[in-house]
Amino acid sequence: MADELHGRRGGGRAARQAARAHAHGASVPFLTRTMAPFEVLGEEGLSLIERNADLILQEVGCEFRGDPEALRLLREAGADVDGERVRFPLGLARSLVQATAPASFVQHARNPARSVTIGGPHTVLAPNYGSPFVRDLEGGRRYATLEDFQNFVKLAYASPHLHHSGGTVCEPTDVPVNKRHLDMVYAHLRYSDKPFMGSVTAAERAADTVEMARIVFGAEFVDGNAVVTSLINASSPLVWDASMLGALRTYAAANQATIVTPFILAGAMAPVTVAGVCAQTLAEAMAGIALTQLVRPGVPAILGSFASSMSMQSGAPTFGTPEPALVLYVMAALARRLGVPFRSGGSLTASKVEDAQAAYESAATLQPTILAGTHFVLHAAGWLEGGLTIGYEKFVMDADQCGMMGVFVNGVDLSENGQAMDAIRENPPGQHYLGSAHTLANFETAFYRSEIADNNSYEQWLEEGELDARARASRVWRRMLAEYEAPPIDPGVDEALLEFVARRKASMPDALV
Amino acid sequence: MADELHGRRGGGRAARQAARAHAHGASVPFLTRTMAPFEVLGEEGLSLIERNADLILQEVGCEFRGDPEALRLLREAGADVDGERVRFPLGLARSLVQATAPASFVQHARNPARSVTIGGPHTVLAPNYGSPFVRDLEGGRRYATLEDFQNFVKLAYASPHLHHSGGTVCEPTDVPVNKRHLDMVYAHLRYSDKPFMGSVTAAERAADTVEMARIVFGAEFVDGNAVVTSLINASSPLVWDASMLGALRTYAAANQATIVTPFILAGAMAPVTVAGVCAQTLAEAMAGIALTQLVRPGVPAILGSFASSMSMQSGAPTFGTPEPALVLYVMAALARRLGVPFRSGGSLTASKVEDAQAAYESAATLQPTILAGTHFVLHAAGWLEGGLTIGYEKFVMDADQCGMMGVFVNGVDLSENGQAMDAIRENPPGQHYLGSAHTLANFETAFYRSEIADNNSYEQWLEEGELDARARASRVWRRMLAEYEAPPIDPGVDEALLEFVARRKASMPDALV
Repeated sequence: MADELHGRRGGGRAARQAARAHAHGASVPFLTRTMAPFEVLGEEGLSLIERNADLILQEVGCEFRGDPEALRLLREAGADVDGERVRFPLGLARSLVQATAPASFVQHARNPARSVTIGGPHTVLAPNYGSPFVRDLEGGRRYATLEDFQNFVKLAYASPHLHHSGGTVCEPTDVPVNKRHLDMVYAHLRYSDKPFMGSVTAAERAADTVEMARIVFGAEFVDGNAVVTSLINASSPLVWDASMLGALRTYAAANQATIVTPFILAGAMAPVTVAGVCAQTLAEAMAGIALTQLVRPGVPAILGSFASSMSMQSGAPTFGTPEPALVLYVMAALARRLGVPFRSGGSLTASKVEDAQAAYESAATLQPTILAGTHFVLHAAGWLEGGLTIGYEKFVMDADQCGMMGVFVNGVDLSENGQAMDAIRENPPGQHYLGSAHTLANFETAFYRSEIADNNSYEQWLEEGELDARARASRVWRRMLAEYEAPPIDPGVDEALLEFVARRKASMPDALV
Repeated sequence: MADELHGRRGGGRAARQAARAHAHGASVPFLTRTMAPFEVLGEEGLSLIERNADLILQEVGCEFRGDPEALRLLREAGADVDGERVRFPLGLARSLVQATAPASFVQHARNPARSVTIGGPHTVLAPNYGSPFVRDLEGGRRYATLEDFQNFVKLAYASPHLHHSGGTVCEPTDVPVNKRHLDMVYAHLRYSDKPFMGSVTAAERAADTVEMARIVFGAEFVDGNAVVTSLINASSPLVWDASMLGALRTYAAANQATIVTPFILAGAMAPVTVAGVCAQTLAEAMAGIALTQLVRPGVPAILGSFASSMSMQSGAPTFGTPEPALVLYVMAALARRLGVPFRSGGSLTASKVEDAQAAYESAATLQPTILAGTHFVLHAAGWLEGGLTIGYEKFVMDADQCGMMGVFVNGVDLSENGQAMDAIRENPPGQHYLGSAHTLANFETAFYRSEIADNNSYEQWLEEGELDARARASRVWRRMLAEYEAPPIDPGVDEALLEFVARRKASMPDALV
C-alpha cells in the first residue's frame, strides 16, 4: 500500500482543485486505483491453478480450427500439432506470453485527451457489448437498430463515467450482417472521440476496421500504436474457431490490441467448479495470447475472463452470484502474475427489467470487478437479460454506479483539509458541523452526487409522483441525448470515412452472416 | 492468506458433504471468512488517523452528560474531568480499551447451536433496527405494530442467511413507549432461538432485558457469559448522553455486550471528510468502550461505526455512495488495530421502495461490509428510506444477498473435486460439460440458488406475468410466514417470562417516552 498516493499535502491551489475534481467524479480519461486488489487466494492456491492450466495445455491442448497459418506459427514455436489439436510442452504458452506481451499499453483515442492506459493501477470502463435487443421504459423491448447503436455511442460519449466507446454496443439489426461493422466503426469515430473496439466476426471485417482507423490516425501511427482493442472469444472448452483466429491474426499483424476471452457458462463450457473454470480459462487465454505474440511479438493483448454460473432449473446463465465473483478475483490475480492486462466484469444481470434484481446482480459484478483491479471493463453499463438486451435506463443507472467507483478508487484524502483536525478542534461537543467553515468550504465536493438516486423525504417523494429509479433514469438519458453535441472531426477525414464505407458496402451483396 | 483454509483435501464423504453444504449457503450459525480484509489505507494513513483520534480525546475530549457515576469512573482512571467534559491524557482511552476488552467473544443463544462468535474471521448478520414504519407491496407504508415486529422476528428466525434476531427490528408503535421493550424482548425469546439485542432507551429497560435473559439462561450463566448484545449510540459530535450511558453501564455491570457506535451524518455530526469522520468516530468509540471496561474489566464491547453521506440539496442522509464505503473500510482496519470486534454496514438505502436504487445502494454497503471483515452487521436485511421504514419484500431480498455473501466468504474449493482436473482431462475440446460425470455429481450444489432472481427466458418471464423482483419477494416472505413454526421453549420458562412482562407492565402507567 503506497500511502504517499493518498496524501495530497502540497501542490498549491490548482493541484488541490484538480485533486478535488478527481475525487468527486469529474471526468477523467480512466481510473487510477490507489489501493491494492482484493485477493481470495494466496500463493499456494494460485500456483496450483497455474500448474493445472499448464497441465491442461500439455495434456489436452486446444483446437485451433480452420486456420493453417495459426497451426504453422504454433508448430514453429515448439507446440505439438496433431491435426488441429495443439498441445503445448509444459510452460511453453506461458513463456511465449511472458517473453513479449506488454503488461500495460496505451490505446489512443482520436482525441488524445481521451487516450486510455490499459494495465497497471488503471481501470477503463466501457459500455455493454453484443445485445440484439434494446429496451426503454416507454418502448419496451425490441430489436436494436443503427439508430439505437448511435444513441448509445452518444450516451457513452456524454457520460463522464465511461472511458471508452465500446464495440458492438448493440447489434444494428436493420443493417445487413456483413455491412454492420462499417456503420458501427463509423459511428464510434464520428459520434465519439473516445477509444473504440473493432469488428471480429470475420478477418476481412477486422481489416476494414484497421483501414478506417488508418484514415483517422494515419497508417504509420496505427502501425506503431494501439488505436483499436477488439474482443476475441474462445469457443470453450479449448477451441479457437476460424473467424476469431482470423480477426485475432489480422489485428495482431496490424499491431492492434485484442482481448483474448474464454467465455464460460460454468457447467457447460467448463467444469462447474470455480477452480476448474479458472484453470481452463487461464489455459485457453494463454494459448490465444501466445498466438498474438507469434504473429507480432510485443503486440498488446488483454487476458479476458467471462464466467457465469447456471440455473439448475433451466440451464440459463445466472449473474451476480458468488461463484463468478470468486472466478473474477482469481483470474485477475492470475493475469497479474502472468504479466498482462486483465478484462472482466461489468454490470451483469439476468433480469429482464431495471428492477432490484438487476441492480443487486450488477453491483455484485461491478464491485468485484473494481476491487479485483480489472484493467478493462466491458459491459460496465447497459446490460440486461444475460446480455440479450441493452437498456437505456439501465445504461445511465450503471454509469452512475461507475461514477461512484471512480470516486471510491481515489481512496482517502489525507491532506490537512481531509483530516479536518482544525475543524474538530474548533467545534465544541454537541455542536453540529453544518455551519462550520470547513463544512462550507468542502460541502460542494464532499460527496458523490447521483443523478438517479432520490434522497428526499417520503412526503416530498410522494408529492413528486412516487417515481422509482427507472423513471428518473428515463429522464436522465433523454436529457443526455437531447443535449448531445458531436465532437469535432476534420471534414476531410469524415468524407474519407464515408467514402470508404460506401465503397465497401457497394463491393458486396447483403448477407445474413 | 491461509491457503490451508481453502483446501479440503481429506476427511471422507461426510466431511465433503458438510463442506458442500457450507459452500452453498446452507444454514450456519455465523460466517467464517477465508480471505483477508480489503484495505484502503496502509500503515501510515491508519496511524495518522489513530494519532488524530488520540489528539481529539486529549484536546477536545467528550462530554458524558447526566451521569455522575461515569464521570467518577473516568476521573479515577486518570481522565481530566471538567464539569461533564472529559479529556483523556494522550493514549489513555486506547490503553484502557486494550488492557481488558476482548478481541472476540461468544454471544450465547438460547439454542446453543445458534450461539455466535463475534470477532476474528467471523461475521454475524442481523436484521434491520429502529424503523417506525413498515412497508409491504400490498399495504404500502404504515406505522409498524407489534404484529409486524413479531413477523420480522419470525422471518429472521426462518431465514438461513441471518444469524441473529436483532433488537428493535421495527418500533411496535401500538405499544406504549415505556413498555415496548418487554414485548420486544419476549418476542425475540419466544419466536426465535437465535441471539438477540436488548433495550437501550433507559437504564431500567436495559435492566428488564437482563432480568428476562436471566429467566431464560439462569442468573449465574448470564453473569459469566454474554447473552445480550445491545446498541449504544453516541450523540455525536463527542457527546454521550445520560440514557445511553445508563444502558451501557447496566449491561456492562451485568457482563453483557454493547455496540458502542458513533452515528455520523458527515457534515452534521462530524466534518464532511472521510479522514475527519474516521478520527472522530474512533475517538468517540474509544471513550465509550473505555467506560465499559471501567465498569467491568473484560466485558465484551464492539466498536460500531455508522456513517452516511449527505445530500447537498436537502441535507438528507444518502447511502451507497463511495465515501461511507471508505469510512467503513478504514474503521474496520482501525478496530482490528485496536483489538476489538467491529460493527458496521448492512443493506442501507435512501430509496422509498424496493427498486434499483434500493438494491444498488444496499449492495454498495453490504459488499464493503463483508470485504472489510465486519464482525457484527446490523441492518443486514429490511432497511428502506434511510432506516425510517423496514420493508417485508426488502427483507427477503436482502437476506438472499446475505446468503450469497455467505458462500462468497467460504472462498475457492481447491480439493481434487474442486480442481476438476480429471473432468477436464476426460473432456475433449469442443465437447460441452453438461453431461459429464463431474457436472452431474456437483451440479446440485455448484451454484448459489436465489429465491428471488428470475433467470428464465424473456418469453417464459412474459408468460409468467412479467413479475419484477419485488413481486417475487412478496411471495417469498408470505410463504415463509405461512410455514413458520416457533422453536420449542420450556413451558415454565415461557410462563415466567410472561409473568415478568405482565408484572412490569402493571407496575407503571403508559408513557410516551
